[in-house]
Formats: sequence, structure tokens, C-alpha cells
Amino acid sequence: MDLPYFYMMDFSSKIIERAVNEFSQLPGVGKKTALRFVLHVLKKDTDEVESFADALLRLKNDICFCKNCFNISDKEICDICNNPSRDAKMVCVVQDIRDVMAIENTGLFKGQYHVLGGIISPMEGIGPSNLTVEQLVAKIQQNEVQEIIMALPATMEGETTNFYIYKKIAPFNIKVSTIARGIAVGDELEYADEVTLGRSIQFRVPYSNQLVK
Amino acid sequence: MDLPYFYMMDFSSKIIERAVNEFSQLPGVGKKTALRFVLHVLKKDTDEVESFADALLRLKNDICFCKNCFNISDKEICDICNNPSRDAKMVCVVQDIRDVMAIENTGLFKGQYHVLGGIISPMEGIGPSNLTVEQLVAKIQQNEVQEIIMALPATMEGETTNFYIYKKIAPFNIKVSTIARGIAVGDELEYADEVTLGRSIQFRVPYSNQLVK
Repeated sequence: MDLPYFYMMDFSSKIIERAVNEFSQLPGVGKKTALRFVLHVLKKDTDEVESFADALLRLKNDICFCKNCFNISDKEICDICNNPSRDAKMVCVVQDIRDVMAIENTGLFKGQYHVLGGIISPMEGIGPSNLTVEQLVAKIQQNEVQEIIMALPATMEGETTNFYIYKKIAPFNIKVSTIARGIAVGDELEYADEVTLGRSIQFRVPYSNQLVK
Repeated sequence: MDLPYFYMMDFSSKIIERAVNEFSQLPGVGKKTALRFVLHVLKKDTDEVESFADALLRLKNDICFCKNCFNISDKEICDICNNPSRDAKMVCVVQDIRDVMAIENTGLFKGQYHVLGGIISPMEGIGPSNLTVEQLVAKIQQNEVQEIIMALPATMEGETTNFYIYKKIAPFNIKVSTIARGIAVGDELEYADEVTLGRSIQFRVPYSNQLVK
């Protein structure tokens, strides 16, 4: 019922209609939410709206992808890759920059990242050629990497991508691991699904390893 | 748990951080959604982003409120008020421009509108002085209006506003009605709440009135 309603929707001005269309291109935003955003922008002061528009333009003009890890950055090489205290021999492979932020927030990883820009998903038409797999292999070929940590989602697509990359880098004989799957900290066992619980038993960790040394 | 996480959030660039902050000011958008929007904008072409920024600026610079009905418009007097086939003697009072669009879509109202810009809500600090009630009274004082249709939400705040406006315009001795509350078309009686069902019996409509003449 929603679609025909908005096809007919008579915005009081072409300018409103255009702004609604621009906002509704954002992920998860329909015409109704877009209109709500537009009404909100209309209530703002002129300099606030100018600041918003400027932030958008600067985003596009000043942000590029780090040439080494494909994280977004305002420099050619991002701050993480540029930091001499980070171990370039240990590379964590992630889906996108949000994962970099999440892992950075743990404060426990001192290596570098490699942002794939997605995971293999035939349903969405994303194949290995759309990702930065070749660049990862090139990095390994240059003998720069000793260990790869795969930190992709625990989904079918994530596992497929894990396997594809594993096959690609197997010839180089370096350590490849995935992040541990298991019961989340604070979770009750009875609510965990069988696969997760099964894996957490299969890949149990010696208690002595978990003690703070 | 979410807030401290994002307080610590380490965006890889100040430009990203600024854009996330701008997007997160939109209603219902948190930092996580804002970051999703930012990543989406980054993937767009430069001219698409420029068009988005331009739409925002034009929105603020070219859109004003109609001097007669306070609907948004790109002219001083909006197309509805300017339309000679619309009956200026019948005025429908609504909360905001989204309600104008919704009523316009029915195609059944041929009068003009008066947009209040909100409803009385002490909780949100919105009093009668924040609304365009005075302008409505002025319109009535100029003998331009014969009938007022209150089309405000069927909430406590809506009813309060109805009553306030009714008291204000009672001295002018014009017809004041509210839109009918009742069972929505297509709804089953058993799922309707008591108040709505009670009202729909109390304010029943002669069947002969509903026949197409």
C-alpha cells in the first residue's frame, strides 16, 4: 500500500521532492523517513545546513582509501599503517572499516589491517574481483606478512570468503587463523545455538592460556 | 553500553567524525546509522554527492513558509492558496505539512489549509505561542473563513489543541468540526479499542448520508 501512495505523493515543491529523493537513497531510508529528515533540515539555521552540505563535500573530496590497507583516511597511508609501533607482519583481514573501528576499540590488536571492502556474496553479485584479495596476495608475495588473522562475519558468506582467501594464500606457507567463535562473554549456555556451543567445545582453550601472565 | 563505546570511537579521520556528527543530528539517527550513511556517501560518485549537498542548500535557501497557510513552498503564497478553485472559506487546521500531503492525497478536500507547526505539548515545551494560532484567529477576524475543520492527531495533545483553538475562535460564531474518529476502513470491530468503538457508535452517521448521490 505504501508504494502507490508515495508515487502519487504531491510534494508542495520540486525542491522538497528533490531533497526527499536524495535522502531516500541512503541505506534503509524510505520516502517517509526522508521527508522527516527534510522537515528537520528546514527547521535548522542556514549555517547549520551549510555546515552539513560542506561536511558531505569534504567527505567525498578529502577522503581516500589507504594504499596499504584500504581503510579510509585523509592521507595516502592511514595512521594505523603509518604507526611504527604496529606490527606490519601481522595482518587482520576484515570486511569493512566499521570492523577496523570495532577491533581498534578492544585495544588488543597491535598489527595492521587489510580491508576487503565486502565479502563474497553471489546473491548480491559480489565476487572476489570486487574485493581487495589480489592486493592482499601481493602484500604476502612481497614477504611482508607472517601471520594472517581472518576476522570476517560468522556467516555463510564470511566462511566462503575465509576459504577462498585461505586457498589463495596457502602456497605462501604463512600462519592463517580465524578469530575464535564461541559463547559471548556474559552469555548463558542454555541460550546459545548448537553450532556455536559445539564449536566452543571442539575448539576449547587451555585454562592456563587464559590466565593473566 | 552503546554510548561509552561510541564516546571512545576512534574514527580514522576528523572529516569522517564530522560527517557522522552531522548525520546523527537527523531525527532517529544514531552514531552507528550515521556511520552507515557516511560509508554509503563515500561510495557515491562526486557529482552525486555534489547534487546531494546542493539539494540541502537549495532546501534552506529557496524554501519558505506560505504567508497564508504556513505550508512550505518555494513561493510566498503556496500553490494551494493560489488556486482559485479552492474554497478559501473552508479551512482545515493540521499539525504539519505531512498532514497536508496526506489529505491532498485523498483528493476529497477542496478548501484551504492552516498549518499549526505542531500541537500543544507541555512535555516538549510547545505552547500556543509556538504555533500559528494567532494567525488563524487573524484570518477569521478578517471574515474570510466560514468553516474550520480540525484535523489534528487523536491524542491527548491533539485534543488539548482542539479545545484551545475552539475556545479562541468560539466568539466568531463560525462552524467548527473535527474529522471523524471511528473504525478504520477494512478493520474488524473485535480488534478496535473501546474508546474508538464507543465514539463510532455515539457519533454514528445516517446510512443515507453515505450513499453516493
